[in-house]
Amino acid sequence: MPKTIHINKLAVIGVGLIGGSFCRALKRANAVTHICGYGRNSDALQKALELGVIDSMATDLAGAVQDADVVMIATPLGAYADIFAGLRDHLSADCVVTDAGSVKGSVVDAARTNLTAEQFRRFVPGHPVAGTEQSGVEAAFAELFDRHRVILTPLEQTEAQAVQMIEQLWQLAGAEVVQMSVAEHDAILAATSHLPHMLAYALVDCLAGMDEQKAIFRFAAGGFADFTRIASSHPQMWHDICFANREELLTMLDQFQQQLDNLTKAIRADDRQAVIEMFTRAKNARDHFSKLRATGPIPKE
Amino acid sequence: MPKTIHINKLAVIGVGLIGGSFCRALKRANAVTHICGYGRNSDALQKALELGVIDSMATDLAGAVQDADVVMIATPLGAYADIFAGLRDHLSADCVVTDAGSVKGSVVDAARTNLTAEQFRRFVPGHPVAGTEQSGVEAAFAELFDRHRVILTPLEQTEAQAVQMIEQLWQLAGAEVVQMSVAEHDAILAATSHLPHMLAYALVDCLAGMDEQKAIFRFAAGGFADFTRIASSHPQMWHDICFANREELLTMLDQFQQQLDNLTKAIRADDRQAVIEMFTRAKNARDHFSKLRATGPIPKE
Repeated sequence: MPKTIHINKLAVIGVGLIGGSFCRALKRANAVTHICGYGRNSDALQKALELGVIDSMATDLAGAVQDADVVMIATPLGAYADIFAGLRDHLSADCVVTDAGSVKGSVVDAARTNLTAEQFRRFVPGHPVAGTEQSGVEAAFAELFDRHRVILTPLEQTEAQAVQMIEQLWQLAGAEVVQMSVAEHDAILAATSHLPHMLAYALVDCLAGMDEQKAIFRFAAGGFADFTRIASSHPQMWHDICFANREELLTMLDQFQQQLDNLTKAIRADDRQAVIEMFTRAKNARDHFSKLRATGPIPKE
Repeated sequence: MPKTIHINKLAVIGVGLIGGSFCRALKRANAVTHICGYGRNSDALQKALELGVIDSMATDLAGAVQDADVVMIATPLGAYADIFAGLRDHLSADCVVTDAGSVKGSVVDAARTNLTAEQFRRFVPGHPVAGTEQSGVEAAFAELFDRHRVILTPLEQTEAQAVQMIEQLWQLAGAEVVQMSVAEHDAILAATSHLPHMLAYALVDCLAGMDEQKAIFRFAAGGFADFTRIASSHPQMWHDICFANREELLTMLDQFQQQLDNLTKAIRADDRQAVIEMFTRAKNARDHFSKLRATGPIPKE
């Protein structure tokens, strides 16, 4: 069972799908007294306030994080360096900072560069492996993290108490928390998330040109819809992820291109045995993944 | 509204997901008096009989199609040539033959080669753009084709009456029928169905090797699940599709590889403008497709 923890003030930097859902999940758990939202778009913050996602709003970072026990950063990755730099002079002495970014190496670098050494020891890098192709606070919901995994990637110098606090908050938000190294996180996510997004974007862009002549999308069915759903994701957010995890992503792109090249060559060479073997290995692995999902912490929907 | 049509005997060659669902949909519409199922696996046919999907079973082709008004071929594509050859001496004079294969060029070639010229004029090539990653008669259901498109690709010499009959049957089965040329069908399906299946198989096989070391599938979320669902499809069926539509598929594979190569180069060269432009074009096209689906004949699920 998650421990009971209660914090007085949470500051959420970036109240979109992830930040907003984190707020809603913690309110559902009665885990926080006051949530202050910060963002550059005051209309969106106003909306978050009206929806009851946050209790107050601030358009200056200093005001937002004043007296905060915890600061959650949930903006696109491109904004992180400025945010860390902006936080440096305004965090309370014991404030724990965490984030929800999809890449951890570049985030840790930005935190190390821009926070004080003291603050950096209380920075807990995190990544909720959850989301939809939607974005914005209107899409936020309290159940987003239920039975989903949150990966924390603390460093050797990260304070154990800070890690424990963030772990408990995520548990109260419904998630199962696991820890791994920054490098392992970035390699795994490049494979299972960042690469598939690149493939979906590339495929849809490739077909969009054909569609102009032939209206091909009219004849696409459910398989295509599922396969390309992630190509509706937020372009700026994925641009940021792409460059924040560039080296790991390029490694995976190379591996995938090699694999696709092998398949293409087998088809061209009429090597039917190689093709059916690849399809069979893939089906077995995908069926294994389905079983994992059916029994694991991640819900089917 | 679909015309009312009633046929006395339908023979279904291959009673799997598609063949079985066609039977169930026509029974739901009271469109047929008797359905005889044929297949090489008598256990599966027995199952189809027990489930009430078919009314009788036959393990010899001649018996199955005796006195049949319509023959529906719904096996993997690799079996078609033998089936057409086997039908040649056993079809009733007015029997209309149709099929549900995902590729039309190779099917039309096999029909032309193996049927008499007379029989070939009553062969109506068809493709229901529907399916799930499941296979087998147990997965068949009457609603599979509801509000889905069925593409017929009749040739110049195909009898108009035969085309009309198959069109009406599919309408009674719940589908919307459209017609296009064989070449257009095979190009469109290579783009929206066959290529995505290749990418899903290649991705999952690529990651399966990594997974052995790192258990990466444990940290994959909903986006990955949707993206790779089609990699659970029947390997033999997709092997057959792959080689039956080889030239169109190779063309699409080349186009896609070029596109992915452009994206990879842009990431490597730090060309952020090119990356965000591609993602934005893709998102716009995918959102457009979502709207088509919401208003078109294809259901959301």
